[in-house]
Amino acid sequence: MAASSSERTNVAIIGMGTVGAGVAQLLIDHGDRTARHAGKTIWLSKAVVRDMKKPRGIDLPEGVLTDSIDDVLNDPSIDVVIQLMGGLSPARETMLRAMEAGKDIVTANKALLAEHGGELFTRARELGRSIAFEAAVAGGIPIIANVSQCLSANQILSLEGILNGTSNFIVSQMDEKGVGYEETVKVAQDLGYAEADPAMDVDGTDAAQKLAILSHLAFGATVDWRDIPRSGIDGLDPDDLSYAGQLGYRIKLLATARLVDGELELSVGPTLVRKGTPMAEVRDAFNAIRVVGDAVGPVFYHGLGAGQMPTASAVVADVIDMAVGRTPITFQTLEYFSKDRPARAVQRDASKLRGRYYLRFRVANHPGTLAAITGALAEHSISISSVIQHEDSSADSGVIDGSTVPLVIMTHEATEGAASGAVTAIESLDVVEGNVVRMPVRG
Amino acid sequence: MAASSSERTNVAIIGMGTVGAGVAQLLIDHGDRTARHAGKTIWLSKAVVRDMKKPRGIDLPEGVLTDSIDDVLNDPSIDVVIQLMGGLSPARETMLRAMEAGKDIVTANKALLAEHGGELFTRARELGRSIAFEAAVAGGIPIIANVSQCLSANQILSLEGILNGTSNFIVSQMDEKGVGYEETVKVAQDLGYAEADPAMDVDGTDAAQKLAILSHLAFGATVDWRDIPRSGIDGLDPDDLSYAGQLGYRIKLLATARLVDGELELSVGPTLVRKGTPMAEVRDAFNAIRVVGDAVGPVFYHGLGAGQMPTASAVVADVIDMAVGRTPITFQTLEYFSKDRPARAVQRDASKLRGRYYLRFRVANHPGTLAAITGALAEHSISISSVIQHEDSSADSGVIDGSTVPLVIMTHEATEGAASGAVTAIESLDVVEGNVVRMPVRG
Repeated sequence: MAASSSERTNVAIIGMGTVGAGVAQLLIDHGDRTARHAGKTIWLSKAVVRDMKKPRGIDLPEGVLTDSIDDVLNDPSIDVVIQLMGGLSPARETMLRAMEAGKDIVTANKALLAEHGGELFTRARELGRSIAFEAAVAGGIPIIANVSQCLSANQILSLEGILNGTSNFIVSQMDEKGVGYEETVKVAQDLGYAEADPAMDVDGTDAAQKLAILSHLAFGATVDWRDIPRSGIDGLDPDDLSYAGQLGYRIKLLATARLVDGELELSVGPTLVRKGTPMAEVRDAFNAIRVVGDAVGPVFYHGLGAGQMPTASAVVADVIDMAVGRTPITFQTLEYFSKDRPARAVQRDASKLRGRYYLRFRVANHPGTLAAITGALAEHSISISSVIQHEDSSADSGVIDGSTVPLVIMTHEATEGAASGAVTAIESLDVVEGNVVRMPVRG
Repeated sequence: MAASSSERTNVAIIGMGTVGAGVAQLLIDHGDRTARHAGKTIWLSKAVVRDMKKPRGIDLPEGVLTDSIDDVLNDPSIDVVIQLMGGLSPARETMLRAMEAGKDIVTANKALLAEHGGELFTRARELGRSIAFEAAVAGGIPIIANVSQCLSANQILSLEGILNGTSNFIVSQMDEKGVGYEETVKVAQDLGYAEADPAMDVDGTDAAQKLAILSHLAFGATVDWRDIPRSGIDGLDPDDLSYAGQLGYRIKLLATARLVDGELELSVGPTLVRKGTPMAEVRDAFNAIRVVGDAVGPVFYHGLGAGQMPTASAVVADVIDMAVGRTPITFQTLEYFSKDRPARAVQRDASKLRGRYYLRFRVANHPGTLAAITGALAEHSISISSVIQHEDSSADSGVIDGSTVPLVIMTHEATEGAASGAVTAIESLDVVEGNVVRMPVRG
């Protein structure tokens, strides 16, 4: 392998944004450390940028900065390309060209892997190259290495996590400060936790892409992230955080993969998680992942999901693994879009997912309302575990018609199909106003 | 390397206790899984026991079970020896003989590594053999791989953990049930969480041995576990759990390693950990480890520290890494008793350790007592953050001489030296009865 044959491993960074600058800083300032762990020098040969004049807060040695990718592709002494360009194109074409030029790849581009992973991994295998991508999922938590190596004696039974730090920051803030969604997004943007357009973070897309990558590795499943049922935290109502709290739960944007009867249940969405469990207590922009293996039992990981240096830490660990020769070995056994292996788990039909549900209705404040709703649930064989209905403080007591009040019901276990059917039936009742809020419940 | 050269990796287990039976079960029942992750078949050739007739709850294929270690040492087709004998001797001699016979080693024997690691690792390097030992520390948490590979881009700044499941079970039970130490030990023994003689678990020895191993890896330090200041939970007073709770803390048997000014602070002992932090909420026989790296920030791991299958999971992951060829690479870069590398951190003198302290006194219930004690603290430049002194319910109110009452003080940061000096001075005061209880405080 190019990356492990020489006395020194030469690397090039493509894309010197925040993470790129962090990676360059680790490689330049801590060359002794990386050499000690790699058993050889790791040398930053080139850093490719679009605009040579843009300040980057880091002093690169003379001759490292370039605006020509060809300076990397045409240099046979460069072993590893650290691909930190965002987006799909030209990131995809650049990665293919780099592999064709004999380079191994370290990348943090999760969207690219989620979208074109099949093509890129197949091409890498054809060319005898490796792709390392620890930084693509939960930067500060080394979950890729843990699932593909450390827990390799296990059949993973389930994997669930808070995979999007932006969403978790927003939900935690709403919960702790009792403020609304729009206002909290502005705070997150001011603090740098949310992009100007946070859509992909808050609508569940980012978490679904990460979950698809983890599901390939953990379950040998071939999943298109678009096929993962998902909802986001955009528009989350603070009332639901409050009711969840009264029931002993917190709401988290949870990504879940569970093996049930040999099929894989996948979902991303706001979920009620029981207070006092480690997952419920994950705050701010942290990520967390809970993996259950058939031998090891539950293992819980908690760390920073993003940010310059946590992501750079993952990138540089990958570079060290590449230089020392571990990655080429691991890559051969990775169950990530391998054509030689049939998928070991197929995705379970969403209607068969089972779980408990939190339901919130806006209902007419008159006799028979609760009977109508609980009747509809019973017709769909759904039994009730808790109910919250407070007196309507905005209505005069004694006046019971005309006004509406919130009604919260937590169910026992039911299928997604039954829950959907019941919700549709309930939404058509005269006593119910507007749409029903529905979220799954864990723990 | 013997372990990665053939189409099939043959392994032998020495010592078929609980963990050995679990390892055999994973290798025999899940050969497809291990082959998929290793890229080759892993074959259980021999299982060495002392007593061939003892039932082990597992069906081994004909010819696997033997009571002769020579059946393993003299068989050149066996690549890896899984060393699961407990104790120091003949475990040490057996490991040396196995390496001299050309075998790589996977072991769970933490005491052996803590005691003879230097000799064993040096000999392995001389012979071109590898030793893998993920199962030796916190079985269900892959902390060895995480520190030596996944976080390799970092200088580890601190590492603290609950490394002994037996102690954590006892302390959690005492805290939750409000019962005494002796009684809880009996419960732990009945449930199989504590040995008939739990001394090594509860007196801090086991945690100190694990901390010494982790400190080698994380800090490149050469530490004799006996040099780690340590105290255990044996004799912990339920009153202290209660006072800690009132102050917003839980007591945990915490093992701590922190880099301060290039020196390594090491300690094991009951420690007050702030409620609501992940470490404080670790219950039952779970282990947890919090690592802070200079790039990645804090990473928290939580999992089962012991037990048959969690430990077997770690052993088999090591066997897979050995078979696939990753371990020989990693072993070369491990900073574990390497003569070629100077120690990168030396242990800090215990008197220079800095921290906050919890102090409990039994004091005379008369005027001037608090002034005498706070005066002694002030003389040692220790300032006070909280005080608890409740009315003495056993004494008649109004009678203030003759009786004693408990007094709890939490200090601001001070050195261990100052705290020791103050405690000695306070213990000599007339108004103080018996010894002072002192524990460090975190968070």
